[in-house]
Amino acid sequence: MRVKVLGAAAGGAFPQWNCACSNCKQLRQGTFHGKARTQAQIAFSPEGAHWFLLNASPDLRIQIEATPELHPRQGSRDTPIAAIVLTCAELDQVLGLLLLRESQPLHVYCTESVRRILMEDNSMFRVLERIPDQVRWTTIRPGVRFEMSSLAGDSLGLSCDPFVIPSGYPGYAKEKSELHPDEAVLGLVVSSARGGRFAYFPGTPAIRREWREAFNQCDALFLDGTFWSSDELQRVQGFGSTAEQMGHMPLSGPHGSLETLKDLSTPRKVYFHLNNTNPVLDESGKEYAMVREQGWDVAYDGMEFSL
Amino acid sequence: MRVKVLGAAAGGAFPQWNCACSNCKQLRQGTFHGKARTQAQIAFSPEGAHWFLLNASPDLRIQIEATPELHPRQGSRDTPIAAIVLTCAELDQVLGLLLLRESQPLHVYCTESVRRILMEDNSMFRVLERIPDQVRWTTIRPGVRFEMSSLAGDSLGLSCDPFVIPSGYPGYAKEKSELHPDEAVLGLVVSSARGGRFAYFPGTPAIRREWREAFNQCDALFLDGTFWSSDELQRVQGFGSTAEQMGHMPLSGPHGSLETLKDLSTPRKVYFHLNNTNPVLDESGKEYAMVREQGWDVAYDGMEFSL
Repeated sequence: MRVKVLGAAAGGAFPQWNCACSNCKQLRQGTFHGKARTQAQIAFSPEGAHWFLLNASPDLRIQIEATPELHPRQGSRDTPIAAIVLTCAELDQVLGLLLLRESQPLHVYCTESVRRILMEDNSMFRVLERIPDQVRWTTIRPGVRFEMSSLAGDSLGLSCDPFVIPSGYPGYAKEKSELHPDEAVLGLVVSSARGGRFAYFPGTPAIRREWREAFNQCDALFLDGTFWSSDELQRVQGFGSTAEQMGHMPLSGPHGSLETLKDLSTPRKVYFHLNNTNPVLDESGKEYAMVREQGWDVAYDGMEFSL
Repeated sequence: MRVKVLGAAAGGAFPQWNCACSNCKQLRQGTFHGKARTQAQIAFSPEGAHWFLLNASPDLRIQIEATPELHPRQGSRDTPIAAIVLTCAELDQVLGLLLLRESQPLHVYCTESVRRILMEDNSMFRVLERIPDQVRWTTIRPGVRFEMSSLAGDSLGLSCDPFVIPSGYPGYAKEKSELHPDEAVLGLVVSSARGGRFAYFPGTPAIRREWREAFNQCDALFLDGTFWSSDELQRVQGFGSTAEQMGHMPLSGPHGSLETLKDLSTPRKVYFHLNNTNPVLDESGKEYAMVREQGWDVAYDGMEFSL
């Protein structure tokens, strides 16, 4: 299985348009020891022909252009993208769907609640219904394994286990009380019958005991790397919520993910969905060194694995 | 007045993610005699300090990063963007508003109908209401001149005349019968008391007689350059609407804009909002030569004027 990181940053990307934090300012000045990053986006393929997207970032158009594997191959309109799997309804994970219009047939996997937020509360998503059968929706039921097929419906030996992440719906969602709490945010474990298994948990406020076993059976783990510390955004903005209140477990501290997962045996452990304020982006800094010493990678645009 | 073209392509950009037309294919192969382009976006400033956006493209994040004048200047969160003027509710002209969240105060000018489509029919736009007074909306009344001020409300000597373009609401809009037909699409003439006046008509199915006089009094005109010919998209896709049915007057032919506006005296005439299929993108082609001979420019990302 091939897995490509098309974008590694949290919502807003790095640098962020209105941010002049130390990281963003230095990056624009050309003095930063680290890389710019577009917003979180992963693509994977069991055999290199059919590609699947995990969520759909607002930067998806330029991410596709930067990835020759995702270019059209035959005829005048075409895409090798077999399907998109949505794990939540956050803007920075779903806006890219609106960039995949142009009357192109698509297949989207998500929970019924996420589908309702998009299709019932946002008229713009009607652009995905311009021609009959433009988008096929497959409902993900939390905790229930599902197979992922080609756009034509052929088996590719791909399966996915969706885990409930104890988090909430986006602030913009209406009538949250009518939405099932288990359908807000999912973590995924993707397995290929040809070999290769990885876990995708880009946003989680805590690590559940039962996930450890799943992580240990994976070849790679993409874990929430949004914030280094709990009050990181409050210190930069001067107001706002803690990391945990925003649904993100920080990396550092006695209850952080570095400490919590120090005994994990997963061969490739990758921090993903990095906020522009995170000091771990600075490859000359002590935080980056600490993370690398503990066996973690810090995801960047263009990172690629064969599992 | 300074005017910058941040993006010059129509919706979908050039190349377009799922398009393998002759232009897109050659551009990806590196054999095309012309430039890649992001989606239509113009920024202007009366004095170089306060900047205004005409519409908000889906590529706005990368367009801002590519434009040092639009970077934050002071404090940890900041923007020199004083306001955004929306001329319609098409996705490729409004999606960028969702990229300007991050709790940043904004000022948006648009018709009441466009505001209703965004704010009443699309819950996602609630991200612009996360903090009190995050977005100030100023209603544009078609045909009624309005002043544009700094975000703090200071006069900048900028005024704008909004013209009704005889076109329709986007296909995704609900209950179109409740929306005023004159509020669907506007053309703008922007004037600075410091000198400089330009017209912005990126989508129009025809040229009204009364616009000619306005165009002739401008230093520059940005005109709809979407399609070269009426059946251009039908020939590439194998189905679909004519240029005129999609609200765009083609450049060529006896009723095209080149012929219709051949006597215009505007010093700078610029074709803008170019579809990826338009042969005028090929700078080695006869269409490009014809346009240039008749005194027109073909807009590209990074094009800049002082008026």
